[in-house]
Amino acid sequence: MRTVHLGLAGFGTVGGAVFRNLRANADLLARRCGVRVEFAAVAAQSLARRPRDAAGAAAARLRARDLDALVADPRVELIVELIGGCGAARRLILSSLRAGKPVVTANKALLAEHGREIFAESQRRGAPVWFEASVAGGVPLIQSLREGLVANRFRLLYGIVNGTCNYILSRMSLEGVSFEDALREAQARGFAEADPTLDIGGFDAAHKATVLASLVTGGCVDYRKVYVEGIRDVRVEDLGFARRLGYALKLLAIVRSLGSDGVEVRVHPTLIPAANRLASIHGVTNAVMVRGDLVGDVEFSGPGAGGDATSSAVISDIMEAARHVALRGERGDDAPLPQPPSAIGLTSPRVAPADAITSRYYLRLSVVDRPGVLARIASILGAANIGISSVLQPEGHEGRAVPLILMTHDARHGAMTRALARIRRLPAVKGPPIVFRVESFAS
Amino acid sequence: MRTVHLGLAGFGTVGGAVFRNLRANADLLARRCGVRVEFAAVAAQSLARRPRDAAGAAAARLRARDLDALVADPRVELIVELIGGCGAARRLILSSLRAGKPVVTANKALLAEHGREIFAESQRRGAPVWFEASVAGGVPLIQSLREGLVANRFRLLYGIVNGTCNYILSRMSLEGVSFEDALREAQARGFAEADPTLDIGGFDAAHKATVLASLVTGGCVDYRKVYVEGIRDVRVEDLGFARRLGYALKLLAIVRSLGSDGVEVRVHPTLIPAANRLASIHGVTNAVMVRGDLVGDVEFSGPGAGGDATSSAVISDIMEAARHVALRGERGDDAPLPQPPSAIGLTSPRVAPADAITSRYYLRLSVVDRPGVLARIASILGAANIGISSVLQPEGHEGRAVPLILMTHDARHGAMTRALARIRRLPAVKGPPIVFRVESFAS
Repeated sequence: MRTVHLGLAGFGTVGGAVFRNLRANADLLARRCGVRVEFAAVAAQSLARRPRDAAGAAAARLRARDLDALVADPRVELIVELIGGCGAARRLILSSLRAGKPVVTANKALLAEHGREIFAESQRRGAPVWFEASVAGGVPLIQSLREGLVANRFRLLYGIVNGTCNYILSRMSLEGVSFEDALREAQARGFAEADPTLDIGGFDAAHKATVLASLVTGGCVDYRKVYVEGIRDVRVEDLGFARRLGYALKLLAIVRSLGSDGVEVRVHPTLIPAANRLASIHGVTNAVMVRGDLVGDVEFSGPGAGGDATSSAVISDIMEAARHVALRGERGDDAPLPQPPSAIGLTSPRVAPADAITSRYYLRLSVVDRPGVLARIASILGAANIGISSVLQPEGHEGRAVPLILMTHDARHGAMTRALARIRRLPAVKGPPIVFRVESFAS
Repeated sequence: MRTVHLGLAGFGTVGGAVFRNLRANADLLARRCGVRVEFAAVAAQSLARRPRDAAGAAAARLRARDLDALVADPRVELIVELIGGCGAARRLILSSLRAGKPVVTANKALLAEHGREIFAESQRRGAPVWFEASVAGGVPLIQSLREGLVANRFRLLYGIVNGTCNYILSRMSLEGVSFEDALREAQARGFAEADPTLDIGGFDAAHKATVLASLVTGGCVDYRKVYVEGIRDVRVEDLGFARRLGYALKLLAIVRSLGSDGVEVRVHPTLIPAANRLASIHGVTNAVMVRGDLVGDVEFSGPGAGGDATSSAVISDIMEAARHVALRGERGDDAPLPQPPSAIGLTSPRVAPADAITSRYYLRLSVVDRPGVLARIASILGAANIGISSVLQPEGHEGRAVPLILMTHDARHGAMTRALARIRRLPAVKGPPIVFRVESFAS
């Protein structure tokens, strides 16, 4: 049986788990896939700091001088990039592809922000890039989109793709913990970084939405055009009001195909009906719903992060890549490797501008409880052609500021923004309105 | 771009949808997969009876004389078997493999009952058999088990894999419709056959459980050793009692790996906690939970039947097979095609006998409401070392027959069967006990 040799870059939580699990299950994987994989070299700054466990010690023996040495190593046939970020990882992947060596990566930030450069080099050199672990951790979503559901035009994808935010929102919703406390808990439990901006600002989810939108459209979707809102404005009371109205609030990534008009790609806190299956996804679990024209709605859920779960996805890519490398080896030639199905091309799909996004809205205003206020607000919305579908105003004390919750019918983002600017200027309205979109995802 | 030519056998709901959708999306599929597929010949008894729609007319023009002619046609490189059953379909697949032509099939009955013969021929001839559509319709479960989750040892799989039964149980549970009426509705809506035995007897689910167990173990699991109970004994009142106890009742296929001791494979009505995600899967939807040692719990759900949804799975197999045929063509040789990862081998995994299955139980007895009855029943269970975890007895009239519901702690099937035989002989117990298993699937 042919052995394919790997070069591993990065030995953090995921890199360490890939190294350990691939070695522990080498025989099982060889039996299942008809090819053996072995690490030839490991490059990782952190390696010297690793505890002296068996995997760390074994990896240390394979240590490459640096990333350049990893790619240049003639034994290395396949590069596994688990460094993350857009600096060293980008240079490593590009130089690996230039050397004709295929790449497995979990790096959604890099794919979202530099996808065109990466995929162009990949196609030019006949060296594919696999990235199952870049979205939804251990859930085999990307292969399913590329292969299992290849017969479908995808009309809609939406999902919970950031476990940190979902953990925070779950704690707030189920236990009434404040945003700040839930964030601190997430940090203490290792679910959130010391600088949590990438997660709670929605940017990590936007990276993943960009990758998914690129798969849906078959082109390189421009990350900078993705509409992004994070969860910083969500308060425990919003989760309570949402529940009373029959909804749950989730940070969702949403990709909607507009056919020849391009694609809508957005990340924002979203009220979804309590009966939607994603409403009951709690904690760090990820879940994605895919709507195909043939298959209808298919849902995937599972662990979105964690070393072992993510290593499951990385190893599946490694085995797939290794099968292709081995097949080429059998032929005895040096031909380019075939791209996986539904490869991302170099076109630039049109991303619908934020102003054109239409959805229902949840508004929470802080208003002084006095006669005529609701009428003033309703008339501003009416003038913008925005219908109100329901109103929730907890009993307050006349003359005091109380929350006023409005649910609207469909409105364009632009119209809503302008109406909110007017509402905000009303003397009876205190502080900025809190605004979340409402989606039912009816087919 | 290379064109791969297909021979299609069967032009019913699924066959017709595959023909229509593959032709309608030929360009999209070619772009995504780098290979074109075209039908070279179609063999179907029903073709003459098809309404004269465009697809039917086009298929009629490609009509093969018979199944032998389909395989013998030198243009046909790949056989798509959508006849179903274990007669003509089995002969077709075996003769196709003998001719070195790979096969795509949706035929779970055939794979479950004649898998060893099929897979042996497949390996001998270097002609793979793909069968994504055999379980869970359009949901890309099988590829995910074989490839996306290839790094995992599977500890447990369980799921709703028969849409007909789930439709009936959903109607009974949500609307209080009787079993007989729900079955008639399912037949009227095309979800159940005129002879519904295969579905409601649990045999279709057992075929699928056998396929899944074979993938989990990597060997040919013996269908005849699978423990099967259907849903004929379920009554609306059981669904109500289950709900009051915090459970839902579903027909589940369960595959549990026992490591070197083999595998437990069973299909039966099962009480699961209301909070389990499968409890809220209603109607003809399928859902399967997969527990892997690395990934943890991953759940898949979506349409388990229907022409278009199933065609999505069949077409994904066709494209995968066609890619391999085309790759071989590029090499200009006639080498065997590689088997897909996690191919099913010819070993015979040990299937745990029914008597050894341990689970909690739900018992519904019809008892005469008089003093001492519960004590008698409890003492029989106690003598068999079966603990009672809860009791539900709706208020009745003394001296009349009333339902008595008992939930037990873990008990072996054999011990429970013997205890029930004793309970049944009690004069106060009227009619046969209704017995369902209870599973929490805690990790």
